[in-house]
Amino acid sequence: MPPMRILVTNDDGILAPGIAALARALRPLGEIDVAAPASGQSGAAHAITFMAPLIAERVAFGGDLTGWSVDGSPADSVKLAVRELCERPPDLVVSGINAGANRGIDVIYSGTVAAAVEAAFIGIPSLAISLQAGGGFDFERAGTHARAIVERAIELGIGPGTVLNVNLPSFERGEPKGVRIVPQSTAPWSDGYLRREDPRGRAYFWLTAEGDPGGMGQPDTDLGALHDGWITITPLQYDLTQHAQLGWLRSAWPSDARGRD
Amino acid sequence: MPPMRILVTNDDGILAPGIAALARALRPLGEIDVAAPASGQSGAAHAITFMAPLIAERVAFGGDLTGWSVDGSPADSVKLAVRELCERPPDLVVSGINAGANRGIDVIYSGTVAAAVEAAFIGIPSLAISLQAGGGFDFERAGTHARAIVERAIELGIGPGTVLNVNLPSFERGEPKGVRIVPQSTAPWSDGYLRREDPRGRAYFWLTAEGDPGGMGQPDTDLGALHDGWITITPLQYDLTQHAQLGWLRSAWPSDARGRD
Repeated sequence: MPPMRILVTNDDGILAPGIAALARALRPLGEIDVAAPASGQSGAAHAITFMAPLIAERVAFGGDLTGWSVDGSPADSVKLAVRELCERPPDLVVSGINAGANRGIDVIYSGTVAAAVEAAFIGIPSLAISLQAGGGFDFERAGTHARAIVERAIELGIGPGTVLNVNLPSFERGEPKGVRIVPQSTAPWSDGYLRREDPRGRAYFWLTAEGDPGGMGQPDTDLGALHDGWITITPLQYDLTQHAQLGWLRSAWPSDARGRD
Repeated sequence: MPPMRILVTNDDGILAPGIAALARALRPLGEIDVAAPASGQSGAAHAITFMAPLIAERVAFGGDLTGWSVDGSPADSVKLAVRELCERPPDLVVSGINAGANRGIDVIYSGTVAAAVEAAFIGIPSLAISLQAGGGFDFERAGTHARAIVERAIELGIGPGTVLNVNLPSFERGEPKGVRIVPQSTAPWSDGYLRREDPRGRAYFWLTAEGDPGGMGQPDTDLGALHDGWITITPLQYDLTQHAQLGWLRSAWPSDARGRD
């Protein structure tokens, strides 16, 4: 059997320490390709570039590593790598290690997660791996956990279209308690804006995310379990349909002419 | 009862013709506020700005209209408008009219849809409205359909957290056949990159989306029904959990220490 080919990407940019730690940690598992945004893309979500061209350059990073630096989003990096840059398509895509958790509603904003979902679109199984803030980011230590999780996912034979969103608790309270398989919390986030004036007197607004989101107390969600010190794994999908509302809307919408055609 | 307050936004930018047509079409339904990106943000998905400040300026557009021009993404525009710019929070957010359909996997890439989902995060019901390409974009005509749909949604009393993703078929084949309530297609898209060399000899890659996606022949999805000439309405949610995989993963993951704590 040929060695497993793993594409490593992220949203913090190819020069971020988390991706170097991840690429190094996964080396024992197969052949590693790296393709990641040239610059930090936190909050990029699933942005994709089609009104402008993409440039990709081979760069050295993280000491002895090389990879593709793409002047686009995380999703761009994965799509371009799979379609054009990789000599052969990867068997697995792993995105991270993100500096900061991606759980609850963050999942929707996250470029780290979007890169993994993009892989799923193309039919490649994927994992997104993020490290909760707190006590500094020990990416080497996080890499050890990431490797164990990726190894187990490979053993389980996760298939095309599978996306596992993994969050590692910060190590400031010691080792994680273990692994929890939990759904995404959809609890509302408490955010707001800092309003100030610029040197020319114009108002500007800077997004803040103070206070705990409402879902911290839900131990059976990614938000609560991570808060309690567990590694969380959430399988994701990209069918955004609210299936529970389909029936009600069909009966309520007068001009729904089902059966007329 | 005070008049309904409707926030209108989009992802094509405040100077795009679709948003002016939408704002005008919805005027009979209540008080209209407008807040939209200063520049085109197609493909922005749910990108959010937190590493830089946002500037918002009051601008005139579309003849006799005024609104907030925000130098950020569609989701930024909605969040900032609701939290800071609107005198009172809106009762409803309507995003569009987008130049081009947002159905199938497009839904994930779409800034038009993300703006509506952002409203749902904040607890405000919303609609995203897009017009399929083909035969030019007749936004005035699309506005008439948009108003009828928004009016019906208001009558139905769609609640906080509800997001309706609406696609209007192009008018080149005449009037839409009617309304279909359908799930999002998750059929893979056929895309690729045009590879060329820039004036300095560097390779660049430009995303193409040639050919029909595989889901055109699925009449019971947004992709197929729109292709067949129907207005499609898809209720959306933002819980990305693949619930069907939770049980399997829990039994398969050896280090899942449920019950240990």
